[in-house]
Amino acid sequence: MSGSQPGLGAAHASSRSAILDLIRAAGTISRVELTRATGLTAATISTVVRRLIDDGLVLEVGRAESTGGKPRMLLQLDPSARYAIGVHLDHAGITYVIANLGGAIVARWRRPGAGSDDPATVVARIAAEIRTTITRVGVDPARILGLGVVSPGPISSSTGMTLTPPVMQRWAEFPLGAALEDAVGLSVLLDNDATAAAIGEYWSGGIATGSAFAALYMGTGIGAGIIVDGTVYRGSSSNAGEIGHICVDLDGPVCWCGNLGCVEVLAGPAAVVAAARDAGLELAGRNVAENFGALARAASRGEALPLQLLERSSRYLGVAAQTLANVLDLELVILTGPAFALAGSLYLPEIERRLGQSFFARGSHPVRVTISSNAPEAAAVGAAALVLQSELAPRQAGVRMPLELPLEVTAG
Amino acid sequence: MSGSQPGLGAAHASSRSAILDLIRAAGTISRVELTRATGLTAATISTVVRRLIDDGLVLEVGRAESTGGKPRMLLQLDPSARYAIGVHLDHAGITYVIANLGGAIVARWRRPGAGSDDPATVVARIAAEIRTTITRVGVDPARILGLGVVSPGPISSSTGMTLTPPVMQRWAEFPLGAALEDAVGLSVLLDNDATAAAIGEYWSGGIATGSAFAALYMGTGIGAGIIVDGTVYRGSSSNAGEIGHICVDLDGPVCWCGNLGCVEVLAGPAAVVAAARDAGLELAGRNVAENFGALARAASRGEALPLQLLERSSRYLGVAAQTLANVLDLELVILTGPAFALAGSLYLPEIERRLGQSFFARGSHPVRVTISSNAPEAAAVGAAALVLQSELAPRQAGVRMPLELPLEVTAG
Repeated sequence: MSGSQPGLGAAHASSRSAILDLIRAAGTISRVELTRATGLTAATISTVVRRLIDDGLVLEVGRAESTGGKPRMLLQLDPSARYAIGVHLDHAGITYVIANLGGAIVARWRRPGAGSDDPATVVARIAAEIRTTITRVGVDPARILGLGVVSPGPISSSTGMTLTPPVMQRWAEFPLGAALEDAVGLSVLLDNDATAAAIGEYWSGGIATGSAFAALYMGTGIGAGIIVDGTVYRGSSSNAGEIGHICVDLDGPVCWCGNLGCVEVLAGPAAVVAAARDAGLELAGRNVAENFGALARAASRGEALPLQLLERSSRYLGVAAQTLANVLDLELVILTGPAFALAGSLYLPEIERRLGQSFFARGSHPVRVTISSNAPEAAAVGAAALVLQSELAPRQAGVRMPLELPLEVTAG
Repeated sequence: MSGSQPGLGAAHASSRSAILDLIRAAGTISRVELTRATGLTAATISTVVRRLIDDGLVLEVGRAESTGGKPRMLLQLDPSARYAIGVHLDHAGITYVIANLGGAIVARWRRPGAGSDDPATVVARIAAEIRTTITRVGVDPARILGLGVVSPGPISSSTGMTLTPPVMQRWAEFPLGAALEDAVGLSVLLDNDATAAAIGEYWSGGIATGSAFAALYMGTGIGAGIIVDGTVYRGSSSNAGEIGHICVDLDGPVCWCGNLGCVEVLAGPAAVVAAARDAGLELAGRNVAENFGALARAASRGEALPLQLLERSSRYLGVAAQTLANVLDLELVILTGPAFALAGSLYLPEIERRLGQSFFARGSHPVRVTISSNAPEAAAVGAAALVLQSELAPRQAGVRMPLELPLEVTAG
């Protein structure tokens, strides 16, 4: 039968994930209610639920009170049935999270970044980290669905990063996905860190379902993740949102990407740190992130030069936010990523001011700006969410987010 | 029954438009084939088709050759069953098209623009134009579905234009939709001209189904319409694509929108004309469009100053195209609208050069740039397409385009 009807397997997988997602969203639900909610036949529901129970994803948790007739058996997702690991790989740091099928984060940790190490060495380090932590947390490796790995820059599904910031040049054309699959023994899903940060913000809750929002991300670089009506906007090659490399000064300085006057070369953390050094400030940090953090603290204390440098950077980030809002007609911009974790409150007033005065459709609606409460690890959370989604809604993996799955942040 | 099941009416409307769209796409098709293609019951197909025939939208056009059993009656759309009128209202000109249900343009004409006339006067003029032409072309007024009206600037569904370029200031807050409905006696659908131009380009054919593309529109102002996977990207209030009012020079000149250094104030047709006058050129046109046309012709002949002014403008339009491509990860940019109709070939090389060198994900794929073959009237065609869509797929009106309906341009 299945030989002559090749569509059946896909249809079954789709029903399975739809039913699993309904059970998750409902908390507890009966087979009869699932039949009603899906429009599938009772026989199909029965078969699919049987398999979900056999696979350990769903539990029978007692009977509902009878409304006449036989009381109905209630079904519930087993949140510890499956896990996903999210890894945010960046020059300055590597952030890890483990999330369960119910959306709770069961572990989170951070280690030194890729630095100038050989990619193969870093991959071995990541594999060892993951093995150690899985054992420590006590998660059954057989229950881990896979690894979501997110990193800066344009990505290609075949090789990973195709164009990297100078500090991560050694990663260009490195087969990151294949190398990690070999080293960790799990399937790997690659994505852009700014896109993942937007997904992480969405999962962390508090964003209205119908909204158009962007996560304006600042880490080593500047980018944006875009979610509209609960769907990630990816563009034609998953490289949408590259707001760090729009031109805001035709005669500006040369950026590592090869162009003049990009937002990133004028206003990114590396530019702020370089300008501080040029002005004679001594900075003792080991990398841009540490020095940028020191400048942000000095500016917060009111020191004139750091304040002036961050205000200059804010003006350009305001233009970036305005550009995103004008092109995408946004309702909300969330400032996220490690650099906004350090300095978001210094950037917020200028970005708010700019959107208030310069968003083109301001006569129709305002654009809200908020600082993420989860800025340092939003990208890693989004990476794990992408993997969980591949189980909950495989045909839409990496595209459509579930609408009722705020992550419960349970472990520090 | 329908009282207790409020969804039925909508479901019926949705089946009706889905079946109508299938008949249109197929050319000719039988009821049995419709049953197979939709998954609806034979009884539902029979009922809906009966009503489409009664309404004159679908014709029975003979029997298919028998493959055993009773020969099947073939159904076909009657292209002259319904018509839509598209109007592109701009300062410099008003463009009209009449399209039939099959997608053919049966009339197109152009009249002087809104100029500085009172909006009520212009609305009366549009109504008279439409009445006269309907009579001349011989279209049955009862078969006209409605009027699509597109214009520059942010739109609001209640009042029309909420923020207008200075030359159209009198239209701000004018109740355009209601006034036209009263004057013409047809339902009116309002939209942004750049968005409509993208829809017009899509309908005019030649754009791959899965592509992410933007119509970079230059008329009185500069904007963009965005279509991704056959779906118009509208953002949160139908004001997406406002690329004319992104900032490309923080200390640039003041734009009418209230900001500094917008692409439009630096590089739009009005800026080019003003710069030519400042440099001592005498221009005899009655408006910006005519003078911009004269400068484009002079530049094409190789005159130094006009060439230099248009090259300067091209650099900024190149930045606008790059910004759209970086934010949206585009595969294609189409130059359209009246100003690109006059000067597209002067802009094309610089825009191509910029995207080739500066599109951030150029390592993953190139961004093609083309000049529209339909630049002067793409927005009016798109306006008519929006209205036809409301009949062919009412639940997705103005959002999802049919994928197999290239307009056959039949009349000049």
